[in-house]
Amino acid sequence: MITRKGQATRDRILAEAAALMFQQGVAGTSFEDLQAAAGVSASQIYHYFGDKHSLTCAVIGYWSDANLGFHKPLLAHLDDIDALRAWAQAIVASARANDFRGGCPLGSLASELADRDDVARNDVVVGYRRWQGAIRDGLGAMKARGALVESADVDQLAMALLAALQGGLLLAKTFRDGEPLRTALNTTIDHIASFATPQRRS
Amino acid sequence: MITRKGQATRDRILAEAAALMFQQGVAGTSFEDLQAAAGVSASQIYHYFGDKHSLTCAVIGYWSDANLGFHKPLLAHLDDIDALRAWAQAIVASARANDFRGGCPLGSLASELADRDDVARNDVVVGYRRWQGAIRDGLGAMKARGALVESADVDQLAMALLAALQGGLLLAKTFRDGEPLRTALNTTIDHIASFATPQRRS
Repeated sequence: MITRKGQATRDRILAEAAALMFQQGVAGTSFEDLQAAAGVSASQIYHYFGDKHSLTCAVIGYWSDANLGFHKPLLAHLDDIDALRAWAQAIVASARANDFRGGCPLGSLASELADRDDVARNDVVVGYRRWQGAIRDGLGAMKARGALVESADVDQLAMALLAALQGGLLLAKTFRDGEPLRTALNTTIDHIASFATPQRRS
Repeated sequence: MITRKGQATRDRILAEAAALMFQQGVAGTSFEDLQAAAGVSASQIYHYFGDKHSLTCAVIGYWSDANLGFHKPLLAHLDDIDALRAWAQAIVASARANDFRGGCPLGSLASELADRDDVARNDVVVGYRRWQGAIRDGLGAMKARGALVESADVDQLAMALLAALQGGLLLAKTFRDGEPLRTALNTTIDHIASFATPQRRS
């Protein structure tokens, strides 16, 4: 059993590892960096996380949870297309608060790891599936409320939104400007609006 | 002046560096790797490219040229929405030929470098702008031929297509499956089809 103090240490190591891997990449993050950032010894890191590979997978889970923590509340009450547009605005505002640096933590991990580590790749797939599921559930609820027509394929629309979000965040981080992200999300939402029931289109 | 033999050596070093950085990332590619792959000495690499930073920027240019070499011919004759769908199919087929590994070389470089190297970031921006420009020119030619209505904003639609492509390639590489890429491109093209002149919609 892990003590409360042990849990706090574990949480601190994980949060610092997540921040470092986001800023410096997985390959660019050493245990020495992490020891300095978290104020722990190498043996504490090994004790809680085993090797760097296990730590990397824990970081993928960390960012996947953080994503859902941000998106789920916004997606939980999609009454109409305007609510979807508000979600997109919140994403752009969040990226702007970071000066459009960093992009998507999960996307950066995917880009670095997908071809180099199959276990990590599968963990990112789980993270993306949870994310797509949250978007799909939001669109599905809109449809259940009668805001989207029956023919709207919420699975495909959720995947298209996730792709627009991933591509938009990567372009925004590169251009250091919100316009590509805004355009990518708005264009996909404009398309979803074509599935809005006539009286609720906006 | 560079001799023909010198040019061939320079080209070989660049092609091998581009392949290595695509497979292993920039941080994961050493001059030792490159010496072995290209069969050259470290002093030859320094002679033609200076330091690793200059070599990295040359690799960004290499992949930007390769992108245009693939996309421009396909985008040069966009007569209608079907031609746009054929372009999307060619992209998915090309990714499938690579077993959906690797994703977009320019996108991977963007993801790794955008927050860590401002000169490289700007070079990727140039690459993305050329790419968006090729897509916009294709859509602009469609519009000039009367296949898209006047109100179609080809700048924004090109940016949305580029974002769908970048996000779709990243998801396809992670899922190791073409469906996210196909869905992302098809959804954006479905939206563009809503700007097709009525007799040419498909």
